Amino acid sequence: MQSYQEMSKEELLQEKAKLSAVYKKYQQSGLKLDMSRGKPSTEQLDLSMGMLDVLNRDSDLKCEDGTDCRNYGVVDGIHEAKVLLGDMIECHPDNIIIYGNSSLNVMYDCISRSMTHGVMGNTPWCKLDKVKFLCPVPGYDRHFAITEYFGIEMINVPMLPTGPDMDMVEKLVSEDEAIKGIWCVPKYSNPQGITYSDETVRRFARLKPAAKDFRIYWDNAYGVHHLYDIDQDNLIEILAECKRAGNPDMVYKFCSTSKITFSGSGIAALATSLNNLEDIKKQLSIATIGHDKVNQLRHVRFFGDIHGVMEHMKKHADILRPKFELVLDTLDQELAGRGVGSWIRPKGGYFICFESLEGCAKAIVSKAKKAGMVMTPAGAPFPYGKDPKDSVIRIAPTYPTLEDLRLATDIFVVCVKLVSIDKILETK
Amino acid sequence: MQSYQEMSKEELLQEKAKLSAVYKKYQQSGLKLDMSRGKPSTEQLDLSMGMLDVLNRDSDLKCEDGTDCRNYGVVDGIHEAKVLLGDMIECHPDNIIIYGNSSLNVMYDCISRSMTHGVMGNTPWCKLDKVKFLCPVPGYDRHFAITEYFGIEMINVPMLPTGPDMDMVEKLVSEDEAIKGIWCVPKYSNPQGITYSDETVRRFARLKPAAKDFRIYWDNAYGVHHLYDIDQDNLIEILAECKRAGNPDMVYKFCSTSKITFSGSGIAALATSLNNLEDIKKQLSIATIGHDKVNQLRHVRFFGDIHGVMEHMKKHADILRPKFELVLDTLDQELAGRGVGSWIRPKGGYFICFESLEGCAKAIVSKAKKAGMVMTPAGAPFPYGKDPKDSVIRIAPTYPTLEDLRLATDIFVVCVKLVSIDKILETK
Repeated sequence: MQSYQEMSKEELLQEKAKLSAVYKKYQQSGLKLDMSRGKPSTEQLDLSMGMLDVLNRDSDLKCEDGTDCRNYGVVDGIHEAKVLLGDMIECHPDNIIIYGNSSLNVMYDCISRSMTHGVMGNTPWCKLDKVKFLCPVPGYDRHFAITEYFGIEMINVPMLPTGPDMDMVEKLVSEDEAIKGIWCVPKYSNPQGITYSDETVRRFARLKPAAKDFRIYWDNAYGVHHLYDIDQDNLIEILAECKRAGNPDMVYKFCSTSKITFSGSGIAALATSLNNLEDIKKQLSIATIGHDKVNQLRHVRFFGDIHGVMEHMKKHADILRPKFELVLDTLDQELAGRGVGSWIRPKGGYFICFESLEGCAKAIVSKAKKAGMVMTPAGAPFPYGKDPKDSVIRIAPTYPTLEDLRLATDIFVVCVKLVSIDKILETK
Repeated sequence: MQSYQEMSKEELLQEKAKLSAVYKKYQQSGLKLDMSRGKPSTEQLDLSMGMLDVLNRDSDLKCEDGTDCRNYGVVDGIHEAKVLLGDMIECHPDNIIIYGNSSLNVMYDCISRSMTHGVMGNTPWCKLDKVKFLCPVPGYDRHFAITEYFGIEMINVPMLPTGPDMDMVEKLVSEDEAIKGIWCVPKYSNPQGITYSDETVRRFARLKPAAKDFRIYWDNAYGVHHLYDIDQDNLIEILAECKRAGNPDMVYKFCSTSKITFSGSGIAALATSLNNLEDIKKQLSIATIGHDKVNQLRHVRFFGDIHGVMEHMKKHADILRPKFELVLDTLDQELAGRGVGSWIRPKGGYFICFESLEGCAKAIVSKAKKAGMVMTPAGAPFPYGKDPKDSVIRIAPTYPTLEDLRLATDIFVVCVKLVSIDKILETK
């Protein structure tokens, strides 16, 4: 396909006229589609309806150790839930706390606790002049919103195809004691779908942070969210790697079943070293009597074990795969070789990331909106909502039906073309 | 019954010998009973088993406004849950946020947010030299644990039969800007079972705090937890009273269904003014995408409406009433007139509070323990675990079976008598 860059002004104007007519038709189609968040579709949620039947009026709600899950107590979660989520993230149950319905809330809680009480005996962050976090970009907007809320200065670190730029991470972390953490979505990253390479994880585990209370916030949100059964990305388990590297306390690892069962009604977990756990449990025993054990038991009884989870995830994949392939194939067919942007073909996760020409992302998202298609705001995947190049667009293909998604992708492609042509015309 | 104080040394020694023999028999009975916490009994939990059936594989999980409760979103809770819990605590649904499974956690969260971000634009507490809380005593140990955890200085305020000593509250609050809050369990208080009088609530609403960010932490934990159908305590609704008094923003009101449905798997709520809500929602939208809406819907469908809740609470009362009456009648029969302590006959809640002779509480609890009966540690109902008179003992009659409770109460009475006799003998 011919690159727009190589086309003459006249050719571009002709192409623009054609595309404008198509765009106008889309505008008149009355589409109203919200693709702004990475939400599972109704069809995916239907996969877990059986969860509502595993516990009923006649069920025994005692867990393995005899605890009545209906009553108070067990602040760190029932053992069998630790085993299930431990198997999901390759961690020993003893390293796990089971929380409520939101891993994001667990991350918020970790930052909040570090602000008021510090990390393992170190100075509470609220007593320091300056606290900084590294933010691989593009990344997850809700991570950045937490650090922004607490007045933590955020430093962008570029994502490479192998994960964050580790040269930069190593340098910054070793030089600046104010850097207390880094946000990571290490597998099928939000929004690019990148899985950190073996080398990246090993270099993470071998970091020599200036700050003793530096922690890697390892949000393993998409650990089992593969699109394919064999062709899967592999991620080195970070807790074990850190232990081997002599940095056992350097990671907080998060996960949940939010995109496995019901999005707002799953269970979340934190996995970390025993030292960190001891530190965290001091707070937890003050902050709550315990999380929802009935829901923990419901998850355990529904899945049985990790094999049950994986079989369940295959059903998700069967629904998601055609959607991802539809978007990616359309991008390939319509935009490859046009010189108007790039994208990565992820093997899992919830997003596709389109990188447009510099200065075009906002205009593309705005143009899509005028045709009835709401996308994640341009800039959102960056701290403070500021994409320095204005080029990153997050596509969330999971929620719409295949039919809506087809239309949406067609619209998106036309918007990309139109905005890119305008951009290129500026230089002609 | 003759007061021990009036008995001669010889009579007391005779009585002691008799009681010691009885105590020894109890010690040999091999009783092992944990009465340390206010937990519902198995029989009470059984009342809510139907909750597990109201949602099943065939249910429509959309709430009234069409939201699919299985997906992300609705950070402040579904409307019908706000109506249900609003009716429970006599507040308008617009004044309510529905949270997760723990109102204690909501209180923790409020203190934590006030530490890091302040209250409605006021200086974050972590930036102040000193923050203080008023603590009506005896009170709820987990309240005091939160303020202690955050390094907040706690000031004891004596409980009177009408609620906290309001002369003292008014004086302290109006003079000291460092006082930022007060812990209250206003109805069937923990542990005494006192309901704040109309005058007390009106004086609360008319407080003139020196601190603009002073808030009343109104933990309405036992709002519908009556023992009788007609003979109930009434509590003036504090939000409305504060509004009438020109102090609309002065209260955070908390409640949950923890002791209504399943203790660890209920739903919690915060009710407060729209100004406070706006302040709190800024944080909430950062801290989570939303709480468990499926469980909110489960509660709404199970109860239908507030009448359903009240009918359900009658069944709890039928289980609890005989237990309370057993303990209270035994205290009346065995200890009234003995001059060894006092107690209040509550009409609801979860506890009975026994006030022993000064300097006897620890010894009584310890003696009970040696006979196989674990009670709440003496001192627990006070900040820092320090009962200045060593006289308050919290009795939690809800969890044991009636049979176990009968034995436990008999043991308790013997322990009170023995320790009191020793105390009185010191002066003879």
